[in-house]
Amino acid sequence: MADQTSDRFVVAIVGATGAVGTEVLNVLEDRNFPVSELRLFASPASKGKCLLFRGEPIPIGVATRDSFDDCDIAILSAGSAISKELRPWMHATDCIMIDNSSAFRMEEGVPLVIPEINPEDLDRHSGVIAVPNCSAIVLLMAVAPLRKLGKIKRIVVSTYQAVSGAGAKAMQELEDQTRDHLAGKPIIPNVLPHPIAFNLFSHNTAINESGYNQEEWKMIHESKKILHDDEIVMTATCIRVPVLRAHSESVNIEFADRRPTLAAIRNVLCEYPGVQVIDDREANHFPMPCETAGQYDVHVGRIRDDVSNSRAIELFVSGDQLLKGAALGAVQIAETMISRKLLTPKRGALATDRAPEKVTRSS
Amino acid sequence: MADQTSDRFVVAIVGATGAVGTEVLNVLEDRNFPVSELRLFASPASKGKCLLFRGEPIPIGVATRDSFDDCDIAILSAGSAISKELRPWMHATDCIMIDNSSAFRMEEGVPLVIPEINPEDLDRHSGVIAVPNCSAIVLLMAVAPLRKLGKIKRIVVSTYQAVSGAGAKAMQELEDQTRDHLAGKPIIPNVLPHPIAFNLFSHNTAINESGYNQEEWKMIHESKKILHDDEIVMTATCIRVPVLRAHSESVNIEFADRRPTLAAIRNVLCEYPGVQVIDDREANHFPMPCETAGQYDVHVGRIRDDVSNSRAIELFVSGDQLLKGAALGAVQIAETMISRKLLTPKRGALATDRAPEKVTRSS
Repeated sequence: MADQTSDRFVVAIVGATGAVGTEVLNVLEDRNFPVSELRLFASPASKGKCLLFRGEPIPIGVATRDSFDDCDIAILSAGSAISKELRPWMHATDCIMIDNSSAFRMEEGVPLVIPEINPEDLDRHSGVIAVPNCSAIVLLMAVAPLRKLGKIKRIVVSTYQAVSGAGAKAMQELEDQTRDHLAGKPIIPNVLPHPIAFNLFSHNTAINESGYNQEEWKMIHESKKILHDDEIVMTATCIRVPVLRAHSESVNIEFADRRPTLAAIRNVLCEYPGVQVIDDREANHFPMPCETAGQYDVHVGRIRDDVSNSRAIELFVSGDQLLKGAALGAVQIAETMISRKLLTPKRGALATDRAPEKVTRSS
Repeated sequence: MADQTSDRFVVAIVGATGAVGTEVLNVLEDRNFPVSELRLFASPASKGKCLLFRGEPIPIGVATRDSFDDCDIAILSAGSAISKELRPWMHATDCIMIDNSSAFRMEEGVPLVIPEINPEDLDRHSGVIAVPNCSAIVLLMAVAPLRKLGKIKRIVVSTYQAVSGAGAKAMQELEDQTRDHLAGKPIIPNVLPHPIAFNLFSHNTAINESGYNQEEWKMIHESKKILHDDEIVMTATCIRVPVLRAHSESVNIEFADRRPTLAAIRNVLCEYPGVQVIDDREANHFPMPCETAGQYDVHVGRIRDDVSNSRAIELFVSGDQLLKGAALGAVQIAETMISRKLLTPKRGALATDRAPEKVTRSS
């Protein structure tokens, strides 16, 4: 990772016990993020419990007005309402807010960042950085590299979204409901609005006057902001499927002019950081959620010319929604801010009051 | 159903113990198809067993050269190899072959029929009628009605296909594998090539030189034949999902000229036989496999204008692959042949040697 100084940071995780929050903890540890102190916050139900970080138990608290004093970075994954509530407190203490909710994504002046794609947007931040919608991240990791080969005109995407996007309780519901279904017991949806065991359904966010649900609308509009491209047009159909944690997407991409060769597409995808081309026609081996779950990279395959449009291509993509689509995305933003010298620890490089000896550094 | 005469027919089911074959039996009974005698054939493994039809046990045999003597109609769901093997035998006895395999679908002179869409093609049959690919059927039930409103130029479809398309063993594998996965046991795919419990994968038929798999190719080319439209272009991405028996599809439809209003689209879909519009934006209730499984109708919803193309619309469709996509489709072809007076029982209307008293007639 990008730690080229001896700086270490006071980091807060808000929503630490959630599906994304626990992954943020894992990713910080796995990538040796330079943490001097870790503060964990969750709802009152978790107060007094602990989570392990680098082998040490860290108590979980409930965030209050002074929780972020001296805090350098907070990664929030507790929903829009909490993010809105905490923003003024973080602003007051100059704590950088890296927010996984959709609260501020489309706000003017809030960078919406996928570090591989638009890291330079971080340079203009004013305290809040938004992590994009997970489906948009998985999509754009496959789309962004292709812009090197030609202007993209239109995207038609259909998603196959894991239940993890609806949180840890939804993941538990999929398992419990599946168990009940196999035992012949009746199914009563609780967290998700429709049965999910051996079923799928249109993403259950509200439908707007255009007939699109919020998830689809986020994909469409966030993509324009991330790509800095107001001309690109997109349509999306977002579907929840009985998969635990990786999102997959069927993507049709129309170029403005001549479409690139498949060899050129393969090359730019192979070279792109965070992308793996999984496209073995002979073995019929393409991106699958069982192979992307738990992985940092987004897999891209089924790369082929669209037989219905001479300027279009088809792709199939899969990526871990909890990692690249949320937790990893957030930690990568923090890492990128360090490497772009946008972060200075408030306590200075020597103030390392927690387990500094366990921090190993990669150059 | 269409039984307006007192004719009754000797019917054979080949592949009677398979996922589709057992549904053919159910559908014949449920729709009071005018059966005078039912003959069941399967692989040697099932020889000597029986299946119930109208409360009576019917023995299962292995088809031989003289199995189809006096037989009026045979419905085959035992794969292409068996269909090819039996064709000359059926031809020799003038037994009409309604074939669920892909063996003859694209053959010149073989009608490829969805009875609601192109029943008139049956009039030119020469002994073999092909039931289209199940994904094509589900798609076209939603697409065909729209042609009344304008010429369709291009279709972009992504499927969410149930495992039933791979047969009864694949359905069992989904259940068993899911049970194992939940119990923490290792998963070893057997019938399907990749894990299917809580996973999904690109349809595992061979990939052609264009990069499309056979399933996608069938959808594309069979649709042109069924619609008698060589100008319509289509691209498809076929994905197997952990759902037991209904296929769903995300469909983008581009019209050649101005797109119809959503009200007009809703109207033609509501009026079309075999289609139900399930499109409640307020309640977030749209087509789902758990509601189409076991049903005859194809459900269509998420009807909306495509924000990326002023001539296009979006739909989400779901239909029972085993019923409308195979067994019901085949029986409806037989019913339509009767109503179009294309079938005359070889033994005559009075030769009803099996349980005629149990046949109740509609109209």
